[in-house]
Amino acid sequence: MTEPSRPSRSPTFADVARAAERLAGVAHRTPVLTSRTADAQTGARLFFKAENLQRAGAFKFRGAYNAIAALPADARARGVLAYSSGNHAQAMALAARLLAVPATIVMPLDAPAMKVAATEGYGAEVVRFDRYTQDRVALGREIAEARGLTLIPPYDHPDVIAGQGTAALELIEDTGPLDMLVVCLGGGGLISGCALAAAERSPGCAVIGVEPEAGDDGQRSFRAGRIVTIPVPRTIADGAQTTFLGALTFPIIRERVADIVTVSDGELVATMRFFAERMKLVVEPTGCLAAAALLHGRIAARGKRVGVVISGGNVDLAAFARHVGT
Amino acid sequence: MTEPSRPSRSPTFADVARAAERLAGVAHRTPVLTSRTADAQTGARLFFKAENLQRAGAFKFRGAYNAIAALPADARARGVLAYSSGNHAQAMALAARLLAVPATIVMPLDAPAMKVAATEGYGAEVVRFDRYTQDRVALGREIAEARGLTLIPPYDHPDVIAGQGTAALELIEDTGPLDMLVVCLGGGGLISGCALAAAERSPGCAVIGVEPEAGDDGQRSFRAGRIVTIPVPRTIADGAQTTFLGALTFPIIRERVADIVTVSDGELVATMRFFAERMKLVVEPTGCLAAAALLHGRIAARGKRVGVVISGGNVDLAAFARHVGT
Repeated sequence: MTEPSRPSRSPTFADVARAAERLAGVAHRTPVLTSRTADAQTGARLFFKAENLQRAGAFKFRGAYNAIAALPADARARGVLAYSSGNHAQAMALAARLLAVPATIVMPLDAPAMKVAATEGYGAEVVRFDRYTQDRVALGREIAEARGLTLIPPYDHPDVIAGQGTAALELIEDTGPLDMLVVCLGGGGLISGCALAAAERSPGCAVIGVEPEAGDDGQRSFRAGRIVTIPVPRTIADGAQTTFLGALTFPIIRERVADIVTVSDGELVATMRFFAERMKLVVEPTGCLAAAALLHGRIAARGKRVGVVISGGNVDLAAFARHVGT
Repeated sequence: MTEPSRPSRSPTFADVARAAERLAGVAHRTPVLTSRTADAQTGARLFFKAENLQRAGAFKFRGAYNAIAALPADARARGVLAYSSGNHAQAMALAARLLAVPATIVMPLDAPAMKVAATEGYGAEVVRFDRYTQDRVALGREIAEARGLTLIPPYDHPDVIAGQGTAALELIEDTGPLDMLVVCLGGGGLISGCALAAAERSPGCAVIGVEPEAGDDGQRSFRAGRIVTIPVPRTIADGAQTTFLGALTFPIIRERVADIVTVSDGELVATMRFFAERMKLVVEPTGCLAAAALLHGRIAARGKRVGVVISGGNVDLAAFARHVGT
């Protein structure tokens, strides 16, 4: 049914359901956590889906594994390629290892040594490039073509979107119907998949996207009705430093997302502190986006049952300590 | 069946089962988390019971709530008293509020302002004392007698022990039988209750206690066959700075615990870093004891299925940042 060789096909709920089958017993079924403090502050009943406790530390594992698992046998034998300096790289490396598929990850020369080591630790081949003189997309395509590798992009791919949607599927299975689902927004893979799941399993649930103020391309695109491209934004939410939505994710967002709001970096830091102090969780800045919008009044949720996705926890410990310790 | 007016009665598994009924829907059923990294490092299959995600941030809520809920109506109407500067204070204050029971908490004048505020925030009356000139036990008894309050000690009480045992009960329900259960040891309330649960629900499971090196009164008592008292130990594991085991907990430990081992403060810091970096959890030093013993080879667990209790996450964020950020 799925046709991974045609990545321009828009995914449907059936793809999310199929991804859930592929991920069963492989991805962690992450817990849904609650906080009376957060409920009191917002007047809502919040259900936090803790994807920071996912394998490789972020929801990205869901989409990466689903996309590789969906490939035909010959493509899997040749291998996959991704370019990423963030969570998609580690997720792809881990998913490929679990599926015994060779993985090549294109990472910038100045990527944090820890992230490079983690990616290599999962058995992937890391190809470095100079981000000031080389184009990673062109380099990735060149290597992929030369070696016959399948490129798995970080968000604009039907099986990636479908995999990410399983986070909302599990959440709604655990909580029952929700009035609202709040999800961070970078390239839109997570929110697109989650919107597909919510539309099917919790009809009428308002899906809200949250971006960093500096990286409001999603909000602008949503309002303009077309994909707006921005320069690389300056924000601590490094997972949401994307500069444009995807050709697959944007139509889903237009159709199924109710609104897109933004939060400041200061609000993200306050939310990191909240998670550490009150919920005992290490959450990366991007993972704080959805909760920050609720805790800082960017979304009116009083009296509502609200799902909140914590997208990941991969933050350098020294940076984390600077943010929460002062 | 239970006789809370006779706290010298030794608890049994039936008390743990009854505590589980009282706590259903009130305490969080905390998640059981796993880590491939920890498994690889120990050669075991580890199941972490994340009581840092419990209400008020530690397992202590279980015992406090169970003990107050078990009181007769007249005693509840008069109120309860506890002396504690740590997790028991906040757990008692929260449990009392939920049960609409007046709570008085005796805390030292130099207790962290944040902890005093949290305890008062739950609606408890905080009575301060000078720990250099006043005896908190005598003061507590004096206030309790004058006001007709029931004193709930932090560990040496059958309903407290039974409540703490529900942590292991839930863990084993989720994981199935275990070969080993590793639990931190202060006054012995948690390990006693967990040993009662393990003996019934996972017969043959070896229960191991873990103390800070500097506070090895439990290990000494275990080896000597009598309760050994030590001076207040210098350790970052402030929840295990107890100086002697309880009259109720020690016999249970002698009978049901297989061994007691110790870890250094340096190993606790390394384990805090491990939890933050790899499992995205904020764990207080005391909460790291059990995992530290496994990760640093103090317990041979290769090939075994091992339950590991993370007891709590209440650590001052500035201190936490100092430990994990450098």
